[in-house]
Amino acid sequence: MKTCLSVALGMIVLLLGPLGGTGFAFQPDGPFLAYQERNAAQWAKDDEQIAAKLDALQKRFGKRPNIIYILTDDIGWGELGWQGGGRHRGAPTPTLDKLAFEGMRFWSAYAEPSCTPTRIALMTGRHPVRTGLLSVLWPGQTDGLSPDETTIAEILSDADYHTAMWGKWHLGDEPQFAPENQGFDYAYYGLFNGAPDWWQASYEDKTGTFPFADFPGYDEYLARTGIDLSIGGYTGEKGKGRKPIEGLAGELSPERQEAFENASIEQMTAWIKDKATSDKPFFVYWASYALQISASQEFLNAPGVDKNNRQASFMVLHNKHVQMLLDTLKEEGIAENTLVVWISDNGPMYAFWPTSGYTLLRGSKGDVLEGGVRVPAMAWWPGMIAPGQDPDDFWHVTDLFTTAARLAGATDKIPSDRVTDGIDQTGLFLLGDGHSRRNYIFYYSGDHLGAIRYEDFKIHVKAAHGGLPGMDFYNIRRDPGEKYGQLYPALFAVTPVQLILRQHKGQIAKFPHRPPDAPEGSELTPHD
Amino acid sequence: MKTCLSVALGMIVLLLGPLGGTGFAFQPDGPFLAYQERNAAQWAKDDEQIAAKLDALQKRFGKRPNIIYILTDDIGWGELGWQGGGRHRGAPTPTLDKLAFEGMRFWSAYAEPSCTPTRIALMTGRHPVRTGLLSVLWPGQTDGLSPDETTIAEILSDADYHTAMWGKWHLGDEPQFAPENQGFDYAYYGLFNGAPDWWQASYEDKTGTFPFADFPGYDEYLARTGIDLSIGGYTGEKGKGRKPIEGLAGELSPERQEAFENASIEQMTAWIKDKATSDKPFFVYWASYALQISASQEFLNAPGVDKNNRQASFMVLHNKHVQMLLDTLKEEGIAENTLVVWISDNGPMYAFWPTSGYTLLRGSKGDVLEGGVRVPAMAWWPGMIAPGQDPDDFWHVTDLFTTAARLAGATDKIPSDRVTDGIDQTGLFLLGDGHSRRNYIFYYSGDHLGAIRYEDFKIHVKAAHGGLPGMDFYNIRRDPGEKYGQLYPALFAVTPVQLILRQHKGQIAKFPHRPPDAPEGSELTPHD
Repeated sequence: MKTCLSVALGMIVLLLGPLGGTGFAFQPDGPFLAYQERNAAQWAKDDEQIAAKLDALQKRFGKRPNIIYILTDDIGWGELGWQGGGRHRGAPTPTLDKLAFEGMRFWSAYAEPSCTPTRIALMTGRHPVRTGLLSVLWPGQTDGLSPDETTIAEILSDADYHTAMWGKWHLGDEPQFAPENQGFDYAYYGLFNGAPDWWQASYEDKTGTFPFADFPGYDEYLARTGIDLSIGGYTGEKGKGRKPIEGLAGELSPERQEAFENASIEQMTAWIKDKATSDKPFFVYWASYALQISASQEFLNAPGVDKNNRQASFMVLHNKHVQMLLDTLKEEGIAENTLVVWISDNGPMYAFWPTSGYTLLRGSKGDVLEGGVRVPAMAWWPGMIAPGQDPDDFWHVTDLFTTAARLAGATDKIPSDRVTDGIDQTGLFLLGDGHSRRNYIFYYSGDHLGAIRYEDFKIHVKAAHGGLPGMDFYNIRRDPGEKYGQLYPALFAVTPVQLILRQHKGQIAKFPHRPPDAPEGSELTPHD
Repeated sequence: MKTCLSVALGMIVLLLGPLGGTGFAFQPDGPFLAYQERNAAQWAKDDEQIAAKLDALQKRFGKRPNIIYILTDDIGWGELGWQGGGRHRGAPTPTLDKLAFEGMRFWSAYAEPSCTPTRIALMTGRHPVRTGLLSVLWPGQTDGLSPDETTIAEILSDADYHTAMWGKWHLGDEPQFAPENQGFDYAYYGLFNGAPDWWQASYEDKTGTFPFADFPGYDEYLARTGIDLSIGGYTGEKGKGRKPIEGLAGELSPERQEAFENASIEQMTAWIKDKATSDKPFFVYWASYALQISASQEFLNAPGVDKNNRQASFMVLHNKHVQMLLDTLKEEGIAENTLVVWISDNGPMYAFWPTSGYTLLRGSKGDVLEGGVRVPAMAWWPGMIAPGQDPDDFWHVTDLFTTAARLAGATDKIPSDRVTDGIDQTGLFLLGDGHSRRNYIFYYSGDHLGAIRYEDFKIHVKAAHGGLPGMDFYNIRRDPGEKYGQLYPALFAVTPVQLILRQHKGQIAKFPHRPPDAPEGSELTPHD
């Protein structure tokens, strides 16, 4: 009887086409379709509850909720205070912990393994491999995120949101790839596109603040190779193009990342105040660059800051800025109508140790091991997200795309001519533990599918092993550190993993990847 | 001026002799004496505050506080829910998380690297190397904790406490080493002394519940070697000796660990109810054996329990028991007069994977790497320990000895003819972050000094390296995973480490180690 019911419900789903949270058609990945079919009845009930909550809120505020996504740089799983890091590791960031405990903290949130890929994933809801832009962009590189991709900023603009971004764009330097041409009304971006920019800043620093000050051979290297690494910062406005940022563009100094971050939060809070009373809701994408390998002159000597880890000082600066943001939301009386999500873009970049991030897991930035892709994340929404929750569910950064679309009532604006990997997680945020609609992850590194997670199991794909998972098959829930490969006790899980891989490939065959504009960058691309 | 003051205060300290929390003389280790001298003024002020708090409590309850120490088995750093484990790893233990968030949770608590050593350390306040009993006892071994050692149960008995223990004694099977002869009024102990006991139980299990059921060759092995591994359990009473536990002694079955645990909590709560209204306070030492590699028939199929990890089911049983204990304290109205400390005895024992503990850190049980010795711990004392704290301080299991003595007003009963490694941490518990009086740890494995921590730095002692720390020198606060040895940025820390080692050796010269009764067991001793 139960089987008959689920078959019947499955048929209804098939007749209606794949459903997002609100029932409009777009193309999820194959494994989601199968999972959705099995859960159609429960999710339909949940969707009613979700809709009722959002409708009540909309009645109260007279508009859809505001959305703020904070993407940070190279902060590993275990680095925040609530995970045993924070002040325990010399980077006291109490506001981030408050965000975690006042809202939802996630032990199992996933990003792509490096900077540009995670930004692509968040902006498009798609794995980079589908978009034609696969790996980290380096300064001077001329390709970028295809204008034919649809960003969440475009979708939210279409849904009548104010849209703005601050920080590290890293999706292409050329004007056609720029945020003001990819859906943002306003953007303050582009400074410090990649690591060389930081190297140059550190080189220019004669104070010894940066670890690589007076990098030997740098001048000679630049002269010999004829490369100009100076990269300007821009403000961009939709329909008006870009302008260099006065006083910062082209001018390299160790203080400029800090100045840029300070200017960002000043602008952001002013912009939010301006939009707080607007008829339209807003979307803010704050891609804070500065946590990666920066130093804050303001906080280098602050109490509790590890002086051997300059990044710690920037974490403290960031903490102050997040507090300013939350204060603004409260002062304006819009906290309860604003979803704030904080997430890191990937694991730590140990190359800069001791000024670098850290993770308790195996691997680091660039790896599909958990240390590269499992990242700290929090969601905060007073009145809508009950405090003190740490769901057991897992989700992926692409889900933020689809969730934002659903919150804006714009699921129907997601293109239906391509696969969208992002899954609507409004249910997880509003209903809590057990409501993630994701039970799989494909871990890509560029165009290489490095690992697959299905339910509790993760298999590292090793073609050279003839398809046998061997010791690289983990119960990732039991063993997040990927210490104990276990083929024998989990052999039964091979078949479902192969099955979802077939479903995944089926969707690729139906909706082929966008071909890269240029040959794939290089394996040597620095991860930044 | 400041220097003069601290010199003057130092001289006063020297004149008065080394001070414990309440000013009575015993012999701390050398590095503590130096640290105490530097902090004499501040600690004197703190001691006034501590005394005032305890005096007020004593006025309210008419007696000294009750003390309950819960020692668990092989639970690694990262295994509890508040650390990202718990239900996230298939072992839902909400009461342990409640204990953590209602009290103090510790990211940096340390034990000895294995079972018997940690029990020695807790009972005597001394590193095992000083006591003549250095490594894990195996069933049939005839040595044990010297009756000339002074246990915390003896000290608290002298201070007019009721004293009782339940669980895994593991400090010697012979009557002279037994708990009823080492200070406990009552003890229910001795079942399952070591791993072979568990092997036998699993062998007897024909249900397939245990992973090694029908261990091939086991019968033949026992017959050939002529070894009798059956070990009885006992109840012991001070002055009356021991009696076998009816129905459990000698009778091997997979259910008996569970039956033993169930009986323990039943007895313990009844005993506490009986003592709640006594004029005298009580001390309970609950050395729960069963978390190591056991299974609970009651919870094997409970929701959220990972069926591939039988230990998870026993964690859930333990969680239920801890809840029963806390409920009893509340029902009796004595929660506010009772300090409860929960700590694991060492890191996980991966040999039993997938039925085993886990840690996010490097290394495991038996190692002086953090994975072997850094353990989850919580302290709970409503009204006395403010909720929601996670101090940055570190402490060691020996400190529980000295802290209990101080709470009982019995610091003067600590023997002054030997070194006591335990440091009074009443200040940490009652005043919070920054009040640990420990800034070093000596990590021993048997008689081998494996590593030294001083402030943020940990050096692994590698004699073969000619004394140069090389890559085994860690900033352990930045790098708890011991991933990035850093000689260069921390070379300055070598001298202080050498200095505290000299102070440590100085105290050993003055107060030599008790010689072992028998030749040191064996490197092959199973860790259990």
